[in-house]
Amino acid sequence: MKTISILGSTGSIGTQTLEVVRENTDLKVAAIAALQNITLLEEQAREFQPEMVCVYDATRAKELSVKLADTNIKVVTGMEGLIECATIASASLVVSAVVGMIGIQPVIEAIKAKKDIAFANKETLVTAGHIIMPLVKEHQVSLLPVDSEHSAIFQALQGNQGSEISKLILTASGGPFRGRKREELKNIQVEDALKHPNWSMGRKITIDSATMVNKGLEVMEAHWLFDVPVDQIEVVIQPQSIIHSAVEYVDGGIIAQMGTPDMKLPIQYAIYYPEARRFLPGKRVNFFELGSITFEKPDLFNFPGLKMAYEVMKVGHSLPTVYNAANERAVAKFLNREISYLAITDLIQHAVETHTLVQNPSVSQILNIEQETYDIIEKECAKHVR
Amino acid sequence: MKTISILGSTGSIGTQTLEVVRENTDLKVAAIAALQNITLLEEQAREFQPEMVCVYDATRAKELSVKLADTNIKVVTGMEGLIECATIASASLVVSAVVGMIGIQPVIEAIKAKKDIAFANKETLVTAGHIIMPLVKEHQVSLLPVDSEHSAIFQALQGNQGSEISKLILTASGGPFRGRKREELKNIQVEDALKHPNWSMGRKITIDSATMVNKGLEVMEAHWLFDVPVDQIEVVIQPQSIIHSAVEYVDGGIIAQMGTPDMKLPIQYAIYYPEARRFLPGKRVNFFELGSITFEKPDLFNFPGLKMAYEVMKVGHSLPTVYNAANERAVAKFLNREISYLAITDLIQHAVETHTLVQNPSVSQILNIEQETYDIIEKECAKHVR
Repeated sequence: MKTISILGSTGSIGTQTLEVVRENTDLKVAAIAALQNITLLEEQAREFQPEMVCVYDATRAKELSVKLADTNIKVVTGMEGLIECATIASASLVVSAVVGMIGIQPVIEAIKAKKDIAFANKETLVTAGHIIMPLVKEHQVSLLPVDSEHSAIFQALQGNQGSEISKLILTASGGPFRGRKREELKNIQVEDALKHPNWSMGRKITIDSATMVNKGLEVMEAHWLFDVPVDQIEVVIQPQSIIHSAVEYVDGGIIAQMGTPDMKLPIQYAIYYPEARRFLPGKRVNFFELGSITFEKPDLFNFPGLKMAYEVMKVGHSLPTVYNAANERAVAKFLNREISYLAITDLIQHAVETHTLVQNPSVSQILNIEQETYDIIEKECAKHVR
Repeated sequence: MKTISILGSTGSIGTQTLEVVRENTDLKVAAIAALQNITLLEEQAREFQPEMVCVYDATRAKELSVKLADTNIKVVTGMEGLIECATIASASLVVSAVVGMIGIQPVIEAIKAKKDIAFANKETLVTAGHIIMPLVKEHQVSLLPVDSEHSAIFQALQGNQGSEISKLILTASGGPFRGRKREELKNIQVEDALKHPNWSMGRKITIDSATMVNKGLEVMEAHWLFDVPVDQIEVVIQPQSIIHSAVEYVDGGIIAQMGTPDMKLPIQYAIYYPEARRFLPGKRVNFFELGSITFEKPDLFNFPGLKMAYEVMKVGHSLPTVYNAANERAVAKFLNREISYLAITDLIQHAVETHTLVQNPSVSQILNIEQETYDIIEKECAKHVR
């Protein structure tokens, strides 16, 4: 029996993690946590019977504790509650699937409590990789990527421990606007950007896919996870989303992981690692139906978000936090129809350019820089109607 | 320092193995063996200074021993000499790169002498897999595939020990006649069939690629090497020869090995296994130049050699020996311009259909069946001018 705790249980990764639990009778859920969706949290709590549920929002937490009064399930709230879920004694693995920097502190506490981490919260590594990775080493836990690309690289590294990597090949679908010019992207509406060609994901990450900021964040995440310099991380556009990513070794051999776009594979792989793979129901790749896999260079001119990511990561320190926070706020504003699609990357650029670098920022500095960046975005948006 | 013995040193795999030795100062050659090319053998002997050289042909062996009289190198001959090279005390690994069933006995003796085998002689497993594989287990040696497809599968299995395989995906370029109808293959000349689109290989294997009998033999070899039933081995045509083969696991995850077509990679990988990969100079895959990888179903009607292989392997026992021997003799006759291109698979079919099955044949029975099959082919050819 393996017992897990899920931070972000109502999101896309969270609900798919619970599907994996449903299909494997030897998995148990110790705790679930989410921002505010108490309707779904209640359903999940009743089905999976965790010891603890965290609702980040205090008012909603109170509502949920009334709803769950007939059970023994403890309802907790806020950052304290989230950390309680992340460090709960009965869990050996924490699925970190919250969105944004809210994940940093719970992940740090989980690592200190010697939990393995199934990791789907890239912002944590992007902003605090320099803090997280040494802790992972110190406490000898496993940081198991759940992002399909990073899981693919992790799988391609198995059995090649000790072999020198010549580069990581990070694949990208190119998103719904692949091949379009900036000119043509001017009037993009929220609905257009939410149509991802292959993957069904959360709203924020779908927009990030469209702008390719998501790929930029993934390059940064890959740098931290696999200790590979960013200039040895190559992004390859591969619109079919079949090759999930690959590793090229010094002998020229490339090991790739392929599959249909199904997040349950990397989730299940991370949960059971290093045990053998388990059966997973679902569609298989049919190479004959597929016909071909195509490759393109990423278009850094019309999708400046990716180019910026490389530049930001080469500088490092506090700049990735600014890139990420500016994007987070800009995407929220776009989803709220306050700004245009192209303004997202313009705003990131503005925030990055005006930032005064902080060397090796601490967690509280990271959180301060996040807030400052939000403020800069607000101020910049107030100046123009975009 | 790793010391190896090379059976078939003047062939395509043999000479490339010596190139790998040339590039790695910690490799030493204990023995080399070939059929009759003493000019090249002398050169190789003088450069790599083995203890022993075998020339299978006795007359040529005498000639070589005269040429090498100024050295301390021992010249041996015949099957006895080949076995002496395969079991030489100083070598820890034997590269078996001879063509045909001549490799069976030396490989068996090498295994009994506890040598690891870098294996490029598929006929040995096709005909005597039921003898070889139990010996490999008993003597706890490693049988390391050198064929690019089997090496790819072997690489894709690393780090997945214990995970259930759902199928092996054996890729094939489709050869120079991919897409052609049997009708259009009537007048194929030796020169046409020797033009392989991607790989530079020996003459016999190049013809086998054209007929797809090579892929049939590879299906049989994969069955023995990886203990997977033939109906879980899928052949996928992929004309670019970039994906060298892959494994699909029960979770739907596919691990593939890719690279440019360069046999030195699997050779070097096998020699150093399980050590880390070494740098190998050479061209790398450039996905942007490549543009696409395409997939097709194999055409079993116009290339009956592959269809036959599945049927033959399902029956097993002595039938794969007949398939292989008939092909060997038919290809020799085609290369000698004695028969037409289409007659190759016709002759295999004739030999397979007229064979009386021998259960679990011994090595001497296998060799007898080989001779009988050669005779059947000769007789059949004498009947018709093809």
